[in-house]
Amino acid sequence: MKTVRLSPPPELTMPIGEAMFTQRATRRLDPDKPITDETIKVILDAATKAPNGGNAQPLRFLVIRSSEKITEFGKLYHEAWWAKRKDQFGWSVDEEVPEDSPYRMAAILASELGNAPVVVLAFTREGVSGASVFPAIQNLLLAARSLGIGSVLTLLHPVVMSRVYEMFSIPGDAELHCCIPLGYPRGNFGPTSRFETSDITYWDTWGSPPPWLEES
Amino acid sequence: MKTVRLSPPPELTMPIGEAMFTQRATRRLDPDKPITDETIKVILDAATKAPNGGNAQPLRFLVIRSSEKITEFGKLYHEAWWAKRKDQFGWSVDEEVPEDSPYRMAAILASELGNAPVVVLAFTREGVSGASVFPAIQNLLLAARSLGIGSVLTLLHPVVMSRVYEMFSIPGDAELHCCIPLGYPRGNFGPTSRFETSDITYWDTWGSPPPWLEES
Repeated sequence: MKTVRLSPPPELTMPIGEAMFTQRATRRLDPDKPITDETIKVILDAATKAPNGGNAQPLRFLVIRSSEKITEFGKLYHEAWWAKRKDQFGWSVDEEVPEDSPYRMAAILASELGNAPVVVLAFTREGVSGASVFPAIQNLLLAARSLGIGSVLTLLHPVVMSRVYEMFSIPGDAELHCCIPLGYPRGNFGPTSRFETSDITYWDTWGSPPPWLEES
Repeated sequence: MKTVRLSPPPELTMPIGEAMFTQRATRRLDPDKPITDETIKVILDAATKAPNGGNAQPLRFLVIRSSEKITEFGKLYHEAWWAKRKDQFGWSVDEEVPEDSPYRMAAILASELGNAPVVVLAFTREGVSGASVFPAIQNLLLAARSLGIGSVLTLLHPVVMSRVYEMFSIPGDAELHCCIPLGYPRGNFGPTSRFETSDITYWDTWGSPPPWLEES
């Protein structure tokens, strides 16, 4: 396996601030607007450039392109999503999810993932820290965003795991870290809401506010 | 704690591909070129915009600015770094690290961290997934890179943890995820090397190559 040095793909021209500040979970994906193989490569190339411990590069991507396989995987995703909500909140159907819950939108994805044009699954061997995984996943998501492609970082409930591994012939010693559907957005999406940085930042001692607190 | 919607900081104009493809661990930091508080805020604002599970926003940042505290923390970092290498490889001194090892450069940081102008520690409550932590850390690192600021994602060995918690009055139920020194680079740095994307990507089934394999 040779190593290479890559220069930036010419497609990735969006200012970094715009990509970061307009990034958001996109769960309604257009099933009729395809993503090219070349675009998938650009997005994965960006992922490979992220930092990882000791440059061991433990990530492996399984790209699901076959619409039959995505439909079948979507059914397992739907089952897994509701299994997780049952564990967390006791919910079993849409109507039990509170109107103001962020899980309202996530429930839409649970029903729609089977229509996504692409799904990416990210693996390492067992026991690799998220510090060597999720920087690459964030590159993937930001690169997609900068190309106008919507996505969302999701995890899978263990209840479906053995069937997913069987469906794609995934070896038992590979650890699944996340599942990322990709597609052009259907509909409009507003910005995300976040705490003010000064509310989550301490200065030199736990609990001490940052110097810009008074100004904001 | 109020939530806000932020627009991109005007400083973050670098094309996203350039930021991602020139990002690299920077371990020789200029102790004499300060980073302003405003710049730290821009970098942390970028971090807050990353995806996180259910928008629970579990991250808390401890920014170490006091040069006395960074010097003191640097001694603990040095001890922790060598404790980890002793565990992994049996190394105790610089000369035992092989010439071609990526740990050669990391050993430099172990000696130099105490001179960094800023160190950021990232925490959550216990048990939060790296999926809700490291996307934000990657935003932080990319935003720093786009501003010409070097950084590196590092972890701390448990041997020093209780002393770090005591030094900064960190509550016992806060979990430290990583330690990020920040500073303008001293010296020149080349690009990173990575596997070809086609070597780490499978298509529809584990082990099946992507369609662009033959072209590259």
